[in-house]
Amino acid sequence: MNISALLTSSGINTAVCAVLFSLYSILRKQPSLVSVYFGQKLAQVRSKRNDPFWLQRFIPSASWIVKSWVASEEELFATGGLDAVVFLRAVVFSIRVFSVAGVICLFLVLPLNYFGKEEHKHIRDEQLSVFTIEDVKEGSRWLWAHCLALYVISSCACILLYFYKSITKMRLAYITASHSHPSHFTVLVRAIPWSQEESYGVKVAKFFTDYYSSSYLSHQMIYHSGAVQKLMTDAEKIYNMLKSNSMDQHYGSRLLRCGFCGGTSTSFKILSPEPENGRTTSCLDSPDLREKECGVALVFFRTRYAALVASEGLQQPNPMSWVTDLAPEPSDIYWSNLYVPYRIFWIRKIAILVAFILFVTFFLIPVVFTQSLVHLDKVEKIFPFMKDITERRFMKQLITGYLPSVILMIFLSIVPPIMMVFSTLEGSISRSGRKRSTCIKVLYFVIWNVFFANILTEAAIDHYQDSIMKLGDPKTIPNQLAKAVPSTATFFVTYVLTSGWASLSCELIQPFPLLYNSFYRFILRNKDDSSYGSYTFPYHTEVPRVLLFGLLGFTCSVLAPLILPFLLVYFFLAYLVYRNQILDVYVTKYQSGGLYWPIIHNTTIFSLVLTQIIALGVFGIKRSPIASSFTIPLIICTLLFHEYCRQRFHPVFKKTPAKTIIDMDREDEHSGRMEEIYQKLPSAYFQINSESRSLGKSLELNCPEIQANSRETGNISRLEDLETPGKMSARLP
Amino acid sequence: MNISALLTSSGINTAVCAVLFSLYSILRKQPSLVSVYFGQKLAQVRSKRNDPFWLQRFIPSASWIVKSWVASEEELFATGGLDAVVFLRAVVFSIRVFSVAGVICLFLVLPLNYFGKEEHKHIRDEQLSVFTIEDVKEGSRWLWAHCLALYVISSCACILLYFYKSITKMRLAYITASHSHPSHFTVLVRAIPWSQEESYGVKVAKFFTDYYSSSYLSHQMIYHSGAVQKLMTDAEKIYNMLKSNSMDQHYGSRLLRCGFCGGTSTSFKILSPEPENGRTTSCLDSPDLREKECGVALVFFRTRYAALVASEGLQQPNPMSWVTDLAPEPSDIYWSNLYVPYRIFWIRKIAILVAFILFVTFFLIPVVFTQSLVHLDKVEKIFPFMKDITERRFMKQLITGYLPSVILMIFLSIVPPIMMVFSTLEGSISRSGRKRSTCIKVLYFVIWNVFFANILTEAAIDHYQDSIMKLGDPKTIPNQLAKAVPSTATFFVTYVLTSGWASLSCELIQPFPLLYNSFYRFILRNKDDSSYGSYTFPYHTEVPRVLLFGLLGFTCSVLAPLILPFLLVYFFLAYLVYRNQILDVYVTKYQSGGLYWPIIHNTTIFSLVLTQIIALGVFGIKRSPIASSFTIPLIICTLLFHEYCRQRFHPVFKKTPAKTIIDMDREDEHSGRMEEIYQKLPSAYFQINSESRSLGKSLELNCPEIQANSRETGNISRLEDLETPGKMSARLP
Repeated sequence: MNISALLTSSGINTAVCAVLFSLYSILRKQPSLVSVYFGQKLAQVRSKRNDPFWLQRFIPSASWIVKSWVASEEELFATGGLDAVVFLRAVVFSIRVFSVAGVICLFLVLPLNYFGKEEHKHIRDEQLSVFTIEDVKEGSRWLWAHCLALYVISSCACILLYFYKSITKMRLAYITASHSHPSHFTVLVRAIPWSQEESYGVKVAKFFTDYYSSSYLSHQMIYHSGAVQKLMTDAEKIYNMLKSNSMDQHYGSRLLRCGFCGGTSTSFKILSPEPENGRTTSCLDSPDLREKECGVALVFFRTRYAALVASEGLQQPNPMSWVTDLAPEPSDIYWSNLYVPYRIFWIRKIAILVAFILFVTFFLIPVVFTQSLVHLDKVEKIFPFMKDITERRFMKQLITGYLPSVILMIFLSIVPPIMMVFSTLEGSISRSGRKRSTCIKVLYFVIWNVFFANILTEAAIDHYQDSIMKLGDPKTIPNQLAKAVPSTATFFVTYVLTSGWASLSCELIQPFPLLYNSFYRFILRNKDDSSYGSYTFPYHTEVPRVLLFGLLGFTCSVLAPLILPFLLVYFFLAYLVYRNQILDVYVTKYQSGGLYWPIIHNTTIFSLVLTQIIALGVFGIKRSPIASSFTIPLIICTLLFHEYCRQRFHPVFKKTPAKTIIDMDREDEHSGRMEEIYQKLPSAYFQINSESRSLGKSLELNCPEIQANSRETGNISRLEDLETPGKMSARLP
Repeated sequence: MNISALLTSSGINTAVCAVLFSLYSILRKQPSLVSVYFGQKLAQVRSKRNDPFWLQRFIPSASWIVKSWVASEEELFATGGLDAVVFLRAVVFSIRVFSVAGVICLFLVLPLNYFGKEEHKHIRDEQLSVFTIEDVKEGSRWLWAHCLALYVISSCACILLYFYKSITKMRLAYITASHSHPSHFTVLVRAIPWSQEESYGVKVAKFFTDYYSSSYLSHQMIYHSGAVQKLMTDAEKIYNMLKSNSMDQHYGSRLLRCGFCGGTSTSFKILSPEPENGRTTSCLDSPDLREKECGVALVFFRTRYAALVASEGLQQPNPMSWVTDLAPEPSDIYWSNLYVPYRIFWIRKIAILVAFILFVTFFLIPVVFTQSLVHLDKVEKIFPFMKDITERRFMKQLITGYLPSVILMIFLSIVPPIMMVFSTLEGSISRSGRKRSTCIKVLYFVIWNVFFANILTEAAIDHYQDSIMKLGDPKTIPNQLAKAVPSTATFFVTYVLTSGWASLSCELIQPFPLLYNSFYRFILRNKDDSSYGSYTFPYHTEVPRVLLFGLLGFTCSVLAPLILPFLLVYFFLAYLVYRNQILDVYVTKYQSGGLYWPIIHNTTIFSLVLTQIIALGVFGIKRSPIASSFTIPLIICTLLFHEYCRQRFHPVFKKTPAKTIIDMDREDEHSGRMEEIYQKLPSAYFQINSESRSLGKSLELNCPEIQANSRETGNISRLEDLETPGKMSARLP
């Protein structure tokens, strides 16, 4: 690929971006698309807006950019939660680091690379590799500059990472601020052992009154979800049972819980057995209800600290029974996985691990195909029939400059949904946990399949006579990387252009919701704004993307600095776009409380160390013992820094400090808020909510009463579970 | 190595063993050596026995074998603790598995190996390799027998491992039975933050009365240990201070603690600040005492459960301050590491890890030297000058059959002391933890440096033209192993003979204590029996040894079954010898409570899987696709079994179940034992004990009172800290 091909590619992409950004600025002003571009606002206030200025509505404007730029971190925290803040901090971190890297690499390293060899063609026909370290002569005295740049970038990254210890403080502040969260008081108990004599509910009550008598408040059993028909018949049965049972008057709202509307006795109810009162009702022992219990319960405690203690310890000598975890927030809990028996999760996890490894391995095929397109001239030598196709100049530029990363992008778009299925099957009890687990999987996937696979394919194609044999040899891997990274940099530049820039435009335009909205509005002729659901932020695709570009930036910075301007543009656009999306589009139904930060931190350190190792290999190849020997202490220092951060900051993301929790408890006790919280606790978790969407429709057919009630809550329940695996598939229900 | 060389070697070893065993049966009857061979008894009752039968004392007898054989597991538990029982179970496990393996391999696999090729020399001159799988022809139909044997051995091992779930029960029973252990009520707090205004002691009291007000009982600060002179002056100062302070009458025995004798006010004391009474004495704030405090405290709780909870959670937002762990038993606590600031341990751990890796790597040199001696004929080709030395038949047999493993043994004997130093520096807070950590290090070391290094050296020497290049290639490692293991089996047979059998004789005779005793008695003319200290069982050398022989047994069983009879003899002797040693020789001052079992379990599974992978490689080389494809499900099943055990049994070895602990607390509360325990708690931990030996002598010179008191306790305190790193060095103080 030469300079003109790069210019073609960047020209196409800049144009596409400009068009799409302008298109977005127009589309967002259309009142009919408010559900697509203002999901966040819509969730807050469901008011229609009628914009009377017709002309202005069709003129592109930059107002959204200004709005997104001026928004403060508090606003973002209020709308997007801590996760959004953490994610944007990662983007800001990248901007800062790569600004420093850009200055030093473009003004110091790039000229050295370019003037490393004396002979040069006209700049327009120059291959991109002249800007990489490949052009520096062996044993050159100028390699100290590369080493210096490496030091500056590494120190800068480490210092910035250390200053982000404020994220630990933010997490603590987030915990402290979440006074009303019922999850702090709740422990999810799984794998309650089965016995013939007692129901699960009685067992839970006995166990916790026995061992946690001072702090146990009450509990709520989880019931099996069956098919709609089954639930319907159950609903009827329970309704009849309750009607004939006068006990329900005694227990009042605590015992009766309605999945849809509140407390009307005609709709579907869940029973909360509370035998600690000593009044085990006959209906609780009825075989019908007992069969529905699934060995899982939510146990409420009097203090947050008691819940924390109960969730952290091992309850029983058998570690596979009475498994306790802190419960997720009511909106965060992933009900479907609670019905699955706990004892099969360990085997599921192993199966998923194997499936993941196989998937990642076999995904190499499209990646190799893509990479072979970039190196068309080399592939031609292997397959001579390709020459006929590539003789035209424009075709060649298109194929080498644009097509490969588009193909890769299409292949990659199916990955997040599959990873989401994997994470679901793994048995996460919370939606945020599932998304986080997906994020990690997608991250591994892209690092392996975009970064390493491309580099190794490059290495294999370059020296296809001898290298394939040695490819697996661990001793030669640093050298292989050192040889391959500078020459793969060309591809990575185009990848940043296409995948990076284009993905941001795509993110802004939201093509799938747009199409769905149009389909819904113009084909189905439905004018209701609220008919279209809103989504949570797709951290599982966006965090890995930002981190992948970070990895590309670090590894290429010293070796092929030409990537940095494109990356900086990407990160700057990403900053604007993601802020806009968080403020306007996505709804925050649940959050992990900043648990994405350890992923970001670890990946950044990994990228840094990998960069240093590759640089070590390059310095070795270029026969510069001084630069090599200066790189080794840098690697050691980076690893030590990482270990220190792991010791100092990481535990707070794993466990909640006792002091913080006890202080919160005290504050609430002093202010008398505790009683209020206790009253809200038993009604906090509605199991049936998640099934209300499918159940709702069938119920509505039968009960006119429910029809009236559900009109208010229907939308919310419809929003509730739209989140099917992956962003793409979610948008095409 | 041929059959006659093997017979020479086994002849020498059997003779040596028989002589040493007889010698032991004589030596143990000598009254003068009672301190060497009856340390355990001596620790219980310090009575002299005078054996009048002079003749019988010099006739070898088998009485010790009978006694060791008939001892019940309860007796062993009573004298050796749970660790001894677990260790002996590992030996019994090996006997059982290798009995089954021996039957199937010697009667099914060995004949098939031998008759794999038709031509045979006279049996006496036959090379040992004819009994290995090397002799089976490629594509032989008889390889199913090897596969069957592999299945039988693997299933047998897994079933036996599963039945050892009783060890989990034993651990729980051990916890339940240890009612009087003060460690259950005690939490060790490290990294207490420093402040100008308050002393550590005041801080601890404030923190725990604040956050654990309902369960906090009292605490005890840990003071810096200085040189003897420094302590002496301190003792005087404190003594004077207390004399002038009338407060000590109020606090009584709780406030004053004597390191040597009890409560006499003239000897050395430690203060236990108890400001929760609101009576912070002036002496606690004195700068002298404050300077001695080292940010570490033992905190006593009212219930075991409260201590457990406090030890498990994260106390503060800063995870590197207020670090809590359950305290070890008073006799188990490793005081020296408590004086080290907590914040440097993470960097020490990394340094030790690096040092360990370097040590293990550079230890390859003696191993390669050893292994080259076994393959003298091959080495001769490389270095022709060796021929002159090896032309004599006896010399050759000695060099190939005996010398290599003796050299290796000598080199290996320096490893445990070094590993013990490593583990000490790592910062273990308990002696048992330090020993366990050493055990793991020695285990990694022997598996890598005895097993893998030998095999890979073998592979390198065998094909030294081309193999060294490919040695690091991960894809060829299974094949390399498959080729090398059968031919290294010869060396492993001699290793079992020399290192295994000889180490047992050595263990029985206890040469170093014997020499030391003789020196003490006949050169120094000291007739006092109690002058010689007794030792705890060297698990850190013996557990790895038994597990290494297990690994050798598993990997060689199917491929070179000739090793099995020798191994069985070894394990049977080990069973007798170790039982005898536990009953008679070693004192149990502290124990880990069966924490060696996870190490044993994991290593056994590792050995099994490695065996299966090597077998897979061998079946591949022998072109038997059926046997290969049958081996893969076996590997998967073994790994699944391991994962199940890890889920089901392992957590009990990491955390104590809340139910067990709460039940214990209740039982004690009901029986009224709690008050008694509370009274004993504050005096349970004597920091000064560990320094009493060195301090004692100097104090005795000054204070006649202490001289009298220390006569009773002096022996015990002298026994207390004899355990210097490693067995060897410990026996040569």
